Amino acid sequence: MSAHPITSECGIRSRVLRTREAARSLARLPGKSRNEILIAAAAAIENRSDEILAANQVDYVTLASEIASGRVSEAFARRLRTSAVGIKEMAARVRDVAALDDPLERPHATTQLDDGLTLVKVPCPLGVIAVIFESRPDVIPQVASLAIKSGNGLVLKGGAEASCTNAVLASIWREILVSHDEALADVICLLEDRSEVPLLLTLDREIDLVVPRGSTDFVEYIFRNSRIPVLGHGSGICHIYVDRSADLQVAVNVIVDAKTQYPAACNSVEKILVHEDLSGFLPVLIGQLHAAGVEVRACERTAATCPDLPIVAAGEEDWSTEYCDLKLTVRVVRDLNEAISHINRYGSRHTECILTEDRSAAELFLNEVDAASVFHNASTRFADGFRYGFGAELGISTSKLHARGPVGMEGMLTYKYKLRGSGQVVSTYAQGQRSFQHRRI
Amino acid sequence: MSAHPITSECGIRSRVLRTREAARSLARLPGKSRNEILIAAAAAIENRSDEILAANQVDYVTLASEIASGRVSEAFARRLRTSAVGIKEMAARVRDVAALDDPLERPHATTQLDDGLTLVKVPCPLGVIAVIFESRPDVIPQVASLAIKSGNGLVLKGGAEASCTNAVLASIWREILVSHDEALADVICLLEDRSEVPLLLTLDREIDLVVPRGSTDFVEYIFRNSRIPVLGHGSGICHIYVDRSADLQVAVNVIVDAKTQYPAACNSVEKILVHEDLSGFLPVLIGQLHAAGVEVRACERTAATCPDLPIVAAGEEDWSTEYCDLKLTVRVVRDLNEAISHINRYGSRHTECILTEDRSAAELFLNEVDAASVFHNASTRFADGFRYGFGAELGISTSKLHARGPVGMEGMLTYKYKLRGSGQVVSTYAQGQRSFQHRRI
Repeated sequence: MSAHPITSECGIRSRVLRTREAARSLARLPGKSRNEILIAAAAAIENRSDEILAANQVDYVTLASEIASGRVSEAFARRLRTSAVGIKEMAARVRDVAALDDPLERPHATTQLDDGLTLVKVPCPLGVIAVIFESRPDVIPQVASLAIKSGNGLVLKGGAEASCTNAVLASIWREILVSHDEALADVICLLEDRSEVPLLLTLDREIDLVVPRGSTDFVEYIFRNSRIPVLGHGSGICHIYVDRSADLQVAVNVIVDAKTQYPAACNSVEKILVHEDLSGFLPVLIGQLHAAGVEVRACERTAATCPDLPIVAAGEEDWSTEYCDLKLTVRVVRDLNEAISHINRYGSRHTECILTEDRSAAELFLNEVDAASVFHNASTRFADGFRYGFGAELGISTSKLHARGPVGMEGMLTYKYKLRGSGQVVSTYAQGQRSFQHRRI
Repeated sequence: MSAHPITSECGIRSRVLRTREAARSLARLPGKSRNEILIAAAAAIENRSDEILAANQVDYVTLASEIASGRVSEAFARRLRTSAVGIKEMAARVRDVAALDDPLERPHATTQLDDGLTLVKVPCPLGVIAVIFESRPDVIPQVASLAIKSGNGLVLKGGAEASCTNAVLASIWREILVSHDEALADVICLLEDRSEVPLLLTLDREIDLVVPRGSTDFVEYIFRNSRIPVLGHGSGICHIYVDRSADLQVAVNVIVDAKTQYPAACNSVEKILVHEDLSGFLPVLIGQLHAAGVEVRACERTAATCPDLPIVAAGEEDWSTEYCDLKLTVRVVRDLNEAISHINRYGSRHTECILTEDRSAAELFLNEVDAASVFHNASTRFADGFRYGFGAELGISTSKLHARGPVGMEGMLTYKYKLRGSGQVVSTYAQGQRSFQHRRI
């Protein structure tokens, strides 16, 4: 019987359509009301802290047997875990988003095409955004606050491992929305079942954007299988180039931070390029990396400079491999230009950094490297929506279109053109009876 | 032997890489220099008018046998044709683009993250844009001027029917670029051979955006087969809703213009929704449409109101069919809300219009209809980059992401984040030794 999948598709589709309808009601609200919802939700998250912690404990205990059997890693379980402090932070982030400028009430670009014919470009919500994420239940308050602030509906699909925590968090948001207005009940829709994802990805008329947050394999699966536009990032192959004029103490500090502060992050450094004049620096750097527990792979020139250190020979594939681990690859380059060429060839256009005290070298690097984030004398780990001051992060994009790099609320917006006339027709202009003024006002 | 396609791929790829390299040189130029190139190109187009006309004559004569044999339409051949006046217009459009504000020198959004740690969001060119178009050789000066103004490289693939005209136009641009700087020679790359298109569409690392301009089938082919992001539009199913409070003379004028001024355009009207209180208006409107040579299909209520007029009964498929011809479909709706629901269900999110003297009805329509362009009392035919004052048009997009509606130079830009630090590491902030300022400056 083929009835089941069809029922399921209808079920999801009708839920998403209810979210779409609720989002229209949300977008009609003035910014003040959307902020009131956020402030109330932040308070409710704090007030129901015990309930969230109890649900999180259930999820964690359930996962314990999976850890014991080796099916999931300790690190994975750690990302699931929240705490009283973590819940306070969730609430604080929601209040941060409430404090941002209203994206729907910003000044509009207006052009007078002719007398009584005025074109206005106005920002508007995308409509419905689906966020599919693994573990980390703090994704819910982050993306929920961005969605409500920007007038969008939200379809959430979390990992099974966090289902109790996610259910409590979603119910808090639903209650706050309903208490504001019954018509907002379905602004946030939480899907429970992993089997619903393939169906979800076919709803390109009902959902405007899909944001996958999780492992590289998971994100690639979504990119390959979605009919809906996807905002996300594949691998993060981030480089740091140590220029001839680098401050070498800064170089060691920044590289160790960029590799070890959170090695699994997409913005952690994977490749180090070192100017050939700095051969004396190589043993120092590699020694410090070893001391920090980092496995170092390197090109032949690097290895020749450090004959006494344990270095794995790097192969061609190392330059395009993301380790997400305490590993990195070092290469000696002739000069700044070779560094830029190497990065533009092998980088994933995510985050790239130059360490130098030479300002013109830094500016050349920032201009010529083709990446979403280009840094001078700072750790690649700064590439993040919260650190950039966006209040919260929808995701990170390595696409150049729509939204690039760490993406906050901007990624949830589009625009439309409103043309207000008084009966004008095109033939008047095509025949030269009138001509356009195109006056910006 | 499979050697040929491989050679061909290498050939195209290396040509595109040369364009990418030349575009980097172009993007380094100050806005003043990019404008000088445009002004010189406009003069060269006028000076070499005879040469362009002669080439165009060759193309036209070649096509004559195709018209005679019925393989191509007169309308198709007409789009290929240019004239002394047409060439003057080409040059004028190039000068219009030169007069626009410089997109690469606009003020930047800057945030001080902490003392000595400053984040700047700067606009930058996408890199290389491929435009694949049919007939109409005036596409070349339009997109070439937009690309040069915005610091992008351009790969052009025109239709075989315009090959002589396109070759002359491309050679004019190349000469002007070379005379400015030899390094700019390959900023514009003209591909000759249709067989190169499938290879081109695989170069997702070398080309940042593909813009198909041509028939709906052709655009859909590109959407289905491209690994590169595509900017374009599928069908244009545009509606005009005649509200109870419409000025009926305005309604007739606007509808006749929107249907007949250029029926093959994607922004010509395809469906008319009429408020049920206007039954007396239906015979008037349909009579005028018949007089203008338009075939009218209609719902049962419309047909019942006009028993003496020849009306084809509309089927369900008519609501989602783009005719691109002197045909349209009329439906009676209960009220404004039913009109909005119908449009949001069947429209292609291109251009939608309300005709009314009731301002609040108009505002509701403009807010609630989900389309790139929403109009009040003006012909749908105004939805066009030139008419909107963009100087020239890259294309029209029915996607909500990146660029929506008529797209000018904005669609050729992305941005990057430049972070300038003084050795900062993330662990300082993660451990609470310092906190972010996030001060907009």
